[in-house]
Amino acid sequence: MTGRLAVVGLGPGDARYLTPEAGAALADAQALYGYAPYLKRVPPRPGQARHASDNREERARAAAALKGAAAGTRVALVSGGDPGVFAMAAAVCEEIEHGPESWRALDLAVVPGITAMLAVAARIGAPLGHDFCALSLSDNLKPWELIERRLDAAAGAGFVIALYNPVSRARPWQLGKSLERLRRHLPAVTPVVFGRAIGRPDESISVVPLGEADTAPADMATLIIVGSRDTRVIPRAGKTPLVYTPRAAVEVSA
Amino acid sequence: MTGRLAVVGLGPGDARYLTPEAGAALADAQALYGYAPYLKRVPPRPGQARHASDNREERARAAAALKGAAAGTRVALVSGGDPGVFAMAAAVCEEIEHGPESWRALDLAVVPGITAMLAVAARIGAPLGHDFCALSLSDNLKPWELIERRLDAAAGAGFVIALYNPVSRARPWQLGKSLERLRRHLPAVTPVVFGRAIGRPDESISVVPLGEADTAPADMATLIIVGSRDTRVIPRAGKTPLVYTPRAAVEVSA
Repeated sequence: MTGRLAVVGLGPGDARYLTPEAGAALADAQALYGYAPYLKRVPPRPGQARHASDNREERARAAAALKGAAAGTRVALVSGGDPGVFAMAAAVCEEIEHGPESWRALDLAVVPGITAMLAVAARIGAPLGHDFCALSLSDNLKPWELIERRLDAAAGAGFVIALYNPVSRARPWQLGKSLERLRRHLPAVTPVVFGRAIGRPDESISVVPLGEADTAPADMATLIIVGSRDTRVIPRAGKTPLVYTPRAAVEVSA
Repeated sequence: MTGRLAVVGLGPGDARYLTPEAGAALADAQALYGYAPYLKRVPPRPGQARHASDNREERARAAAALKGAAAGTRVALVSGGDPGVFAMAAAVCEEIEHGPESWRALDLAVVPGITAMLAVAARIGAPLGHDFCALSLSDNLKPWELIERRLDAAAGAGFVIALYNPVSRARPWQLGKSLERLRRHLPAVTPVVFGRAIGRPDESISVVPLGEADTAPADMATLIIVGSRDTRVIPRAGKTPLVYTPRAAVEVSA
């Protein structure tokens, strides 16, 4: 009998988005690890141990989960959205690379989930319908200059841009600066989608032109999608407009 | 009683990845539309009409589904992976924008799914663990020069790159040319992941260094992830190596 570590994506936060594979991994686990608010989404199960931890403790949480699995426990480490997108799967791999050789032999599974940009895009139409990129605005683990360089490259080459981690208490100015930077490359009419807590009771979504986009609607639960020159808005009477990026690219200019 | 159109993501092709929301939308539909191989994945249901169509008929398929919904039918239009990523949701929005005004009033829902890059990434570790982009190599609907410009921008700025639609019978040379192009920006050791038919009985996955990457393992069912300078490979005895991109970016040089 050996241990197992499943890094499980819960999706955007409603059971409607939890895949059967993720549900099975949660049901099979003897111990759950995770950031407390994500762990709270998983209904308690008799006999299942629960280890909640704080935000910003990714490495310690990953190491604890690996130790549990190495000791013979079937462990599920839960992540919001998809564990492979700015989340726990990379932290686990980091620990494996730098940890004891025996961790490489562990039975490890990453269970994908619906990541925030897919949930937000679905709610508003198809803004990610053509080439796009996903960029974290957190400069905790990379220099701000690199973020600016990536914003320039992505907007300049016509990618739609999904912005993860746009703002937090410790990072209040990064989003405003990013929007400013994007205005150098993109027309003021470019649609910007603010999706917050999609799939949860307090979800909200709005579309504003880049020229008027402000940091106000964004918090830690917000995912932002900035269109390209090709992205279109379809007004609908009495409904949220549709935002989509056509399959055919129009923009070619440098 | 009015019609409804749900554009439903089936995920990578195994029921383990089908979300409950997608399952409910399929069960609720009176008529299903879709590319024949995707439609085949949906178990038949008594009284449910099925309209299979060919590949490359996205616009006609979208219009047929919209007409059905406008006539009062509850329609599900099925898509592999996520309908918002190089798939049917954008085609539906295009038809709505250019179609009769009444289509804007329709009850439209896009139901997200696990897109191929998330499934492939999960199988191999966490290659999308930091900033990344998704790029279609199909030059049916955009000029080849634009694809090259986007490859240059993405690789040059340190994004990991997921390549959709890498090859088809009508597009045999684009992938080889793209890999050549990427070799200008990235070291020969950069890991390249070829994931094929993930979640299906004949799935396969392999990792090769960019310097040796060839177009051979790729076909229409393949999704390719090209690492950045930061992406790491962890060898494991008797197992597929892990590939991951650390949460902290090392690369800053221009």
